[in-house]
Amino acid sequence: MDTVVVHDIDSEDDKLELKAQIDLSQSIPTGTDKSPTTLEWILQGLPEKWKNWVVRFVFTMIMIVFFGLVIYGGPLALMMTTLIVQVKCFQEIINIGYAVYRIHGLPWFRSLSWYFLVTSNYFFYGENLVDYFGVAINRTDLLRWLVTYHRFISFCLYCGGFVWFVLSLVKKYYMKQFSLFAWTHVALLIVVTQSYLIIKNIFEGLIWFIVPVSMIICNDIMAYVFGFFFGKTPLIKLSPKKTWEGFIGGGISTVIFGCLISYFICQFPYFVCPIEYSESLGRMTMECEPSALFRPAEYNLPGCFSGLSIIGIPSSITIYPFVLHSLSLSIFSSVIGPFGGFFASGFKRAFKIKDFGDVIPGHGGIMDRFDCQFLMATFVNVYISSFIQTDSPQKLLAQVLYLKPEQQVQFFTLLKESLENRNVLEPVVIIN
Amino acid sequence: MDTVVVHDIDSEDDKLELKAQIDLSQSIPTGTDKSPTTLEWILQGLPEKWKNWVVRFVFTMIMIVFFGLVIYGGPLALMMTTLIVQVKCFQEIINIGYAVYRIHGLPWFRSLSWYFLVTSNYFFYGENLVDYFGVAINRTDLLRWLVTYHRFISFCLYCGGFVWFVLSLVKKYYMKQFSLFAWTHVALLIVVTQSYLIIKNIFEGLIWFIVPVSMIICNDIMAYVFGFFFGKTPLIKLSPKKTWEGFIGGGISTVIFGCLISYFICQFPYFVCPIEYSESLGRMTMECEPSALFRPAEYNLPGCFSGLSIIGIPSSITIYPFVLHSLSLSIFSSVIGPFGGFFASGFKRAFKIKDFGDVIPGHGGIMDRFDCQFLMATFVNVYISSFIQTDSPQKLLAQVLYLKPEQQVQFFTLLKESLENRNVLEPVVIIN
Repeated sequence: MDTVVVHDIDSEDDKLELKAQIDLSQSIPTGTDKSPTTLEWILQGLPEKWKNWVVRFVFTMIMIVFFGLVIYGGPLALMMTTLIVQVKCFQEIINIGYAVYRIHGLPWFRSLSWYFLVTSNYFFYGENLVDYFGVAINRTDLLRWLVTYHRFISFCLYCGGFVWFVLSLVKKYYMKQFSLFAWTHVALLIVVTQSYLIIKNIFEGLIWFIVPVSMIICNDIMAYVFGFFFGKTPLIKLSPKKTWEGFIGGGISTVIFGCLISYFICQFPYFVCPIEYSESLGRMTMECEPSALFRPAEYNLPGCFSGLSIIGIPSSITIYPFVLHSLSLSIFSSVIGPFGGFFASGFKRAFKIKDFGDVIPGHGGIMDRFDCQFLMATFVNVYISSFIQTDSPQKLLAQVLYLKPEQQVQFFTLLKESLENRNVLEPVVIIN
Repeated sequence: MDTVVVHDIDSEDDKLELKAQIDLSQSIPTGTDKSPTTLEWILQGLPEKWKNWVVRFVFTMIMIVFFGLVIYGGPLALMMTTLIVQVKCFQEIINIGYAVYRIHGLPWFRSLSWYFLVTSNYFFYGENLVDYFGVAINRTDLLRWLVTYHRFISFCLYCGGFVWFVLSLVKKYYMKQFSLFAWTHVALLIVVTQSYLIIKNIFEGLIWFIVPVSMIICNDIMAYVFGFFFGKTPLIKLSPKKTWEGFIGGGISTVIFGCLISYFICQFPYFVCPIEYSESLGRMTMECEPSALFRPAEYNLPGCFSGLSIIGIPSSITIYPFVLHSLSLSIFSSVIGPFGGFFASGFKRAFKIKDFGDVIPGHGGIMDRFDCQFLMATFVNVYISSFIQTDSPQKLLAQVLYLKPEQQVQFFTLLKESLENRNVLEPVVIIN
C-alpha cells in the first residue's frame, strides 16, 4: 500500500518538479516510518522491514479497537469522530496545496480555507438538521427562524468569503491564488460533502455505517494479506505493490465477511433502527420495530436448484434481506473501492509525496486510511436512497408541518381527494 | 471591461509564465477585437477606438433582442438556450485548462471531460424532473423506474468516469492529469450546478429569470456608461478600468430599473405563474391565480412619515410585494454582482488570457458575459427557497404519491391526527 517515488529527470519540467518535491518534503510532515519511542525501544532488535510491519499491525489494531469504542459510544460519538476526521483530512489536503504552490507570504489563504470549511459545514449540517429534527425544531421560534433562513445565511457567508478572496488577490500571485482557491473547493467537495453523507447514513441506522466501514477495512487488510502470501501478478502500474491475487483474494474475503457481519448485526435493534425524533417521547430515539429488511424472509431458490431437494438441499432459504443487500455493498467495496486507493496513490505520486500526513505511525495521514471510506459512504447513501428508503411518512409529515395552517388544510384536502379517487382510502365516518 | 495584460518579468517563475502565455495565445481563440466582415466594411472610415465601441454596441443590442425572442419562445426555448450556454461555457473553461497545462498528447482527457458533463447534466436534470413532473411521471412504469433509480444510475455513470480516469493515468503526466481532473470538476461546479439553478428558477415563474438577468445586463451597461462619462476614481486594482463612479451610478440605475421592470412584469400572469403540472388538465401549465406576491398590497409608511400627510404625502403606499423583493435582488446584483466580474477578470489575468473565447464580437466568449449571471442565479434560488417558497402543497403531494399505498394511508392518518390535535382542521362529517 505504500507507494514508491519514481523520478524521471528527462525534461525541464521534471527538473522543476524535482525541485518542488525537495521543497515539499521539507514542508509536509510526510515521513511515516518513524514509530513512537516506546514501541521503538521494544522493537530495537528486529530487522527494519519487520519493525515496520509490527508498527503497522499494532496501529491497525489500535484503530480497530478505537472504532469499536466509538460505536459503543453511540451515534453522537460517531458524529463527533466523523467531524474530527473530516477536519483533519481537510487540513492534510490543504497543507499539500500550500506546499505545492509554495506561497508562504500569501495573504489570508489559510484563514480563507478554514472559513470556507466552517461555512460549508454550517450549510451541510444545517441541511441535515432540517431533515431529521424538523418536527422538534418547528416548536421553537428561534430555531425555526434559523432553519427557515439557513440557506440564505450560508449563502451570505459564502459570498463574504468570495468577496474576501477577490479583495485578497495580489498581482504577483494571481495564478497561485486561483489554483489554491480551486484546491480548497475540491477539498471541500471531497471531504465535507462526503462526511455529510456519512452522517446521513448514520441517521438511517448504525448498520449503514458499521457494515460498509468494516468492509473497507477488511478489504484493505485481506488484500494486503493475500498479496503478501500469494501476490505475483501486478495489477496496475500506478501501485506496483498491488497484485491481482490480493485484489481477488481481498474481494472474496470481503464478500464472505460482509455476509457474516451483516447476519450478526441484523439481530440488534440498536444497530438497525434509524435515528428518529419521536413525537410521543419528545426526544431522539433508536428504538423501533425493525423494518422488513431486518426480519428473516424466505427466498425461493431458482428453478434449476429445485431438483436438488432430493439430495438434501432445500428449495428455499431463510435469511435477512439485508444480507442480500450487503452483497452489493461488498462487491462495490472490493471492486470500485480499490480505485479510490489507486486514485489517492496517483495523487500522491502526482505531487511527489509519500503520504498525506504522519498522524498514524505505519499508516501515514488520516486521509491515507479514509480515501476509500469517503467513496464508499457516497455509494451507501445513493444505494439507500435508490433501493431502500422511500420517503418515510414521518419525514414527509415534518415537511407538511412547515406549511402555513391554511396550506396544511389545502394539502390535506388534496391528499384526501387523491386517495379517495384511487380507492386507497376507505371513506371514514367521523361523527362529532 | 476589457482587461489589460500586465507582465512582470522579475523572476524565474514569471519568465516561465510568459512562455506559457505565448503558448496560450496560440491555442485559445481569445482575440475579440476582430469584427465580422460586413460590419468591418461599414465601419472602415472610423478610428479604431470608435470601431470597437460600435461593434460592442451592435452586439449588445443583438444579444438583447435575442434574449427577448427567447423569452417570447417560452420556457422550453429558455431551457434549451440555458443548456446551450452551459455547454459553451464549459467548453471555454475546459479549453483554457487544456491550453494552460499544454498536454496535447494526453490520452482521453477531452472525452473524459465531456463524459462528466453529460453525466452531471443527467444527474441534475433528472433531479429537476423528479421535483416538477413527479405526478406525471408516476403514471408510467418505465419513467417511474428511471426516476426511482435515477441517482443510482448517475452514480454508476460517475464511477465509470472515475475508473476511466484512474486507468488513463500516464506516469509522466500524473500532476497535469490530476490538475485537469480538478479543473473539470470546478468547471462542472460553476457551470452545471448553477445552470441547473437557473432552470429551477424558471420553473418558479419566468419573472424569477427575466428580472435578475436583465438587472445584471442593466448593471453592466450602466456601470460602463457612468464610468465612461464620469469615471475618475479607480475602484479596484484588479480591473483598472472600473471606477467608483461607474459602480455607484450602475448600482443606483439598477435599483431604479429593477423597480420599474418588476412593476411592469408583475401584471402578466404569463410571467408570474410557476410552471406546474396540472392534474386536472393532464399537462404542464403556466396559468394560475397570481400569488399574493404579485397582487397589489397596501404598506403603511414608517411613523416618521405620517406627519407628512399634510403636505400631500400619503401615509401608506400600494405596490406589488414583488417590487420590494426586487430591491434585494437589485442590491445584490449591483454590490456582489461586480465581484463576479472581478473574479473572472482576476482569473483571466492569472492565466494570462484576454477573454474566455471569441464567440461574441466585441465581448469575448460566452463566459465573459455570463460570469455574473451564474452567481446571480444562485442568489435568486437561495432567496426564493428562503423567503418566498415554502413547499407548495402540490409538490408535497407528488412526494406522498411515491409512497406505497399503505404508507399513504398511514401518512394520511398521521396528518389528520396532527391537524386535529392542533384544531387546524374542523372535524368533517362524511356520510356514505
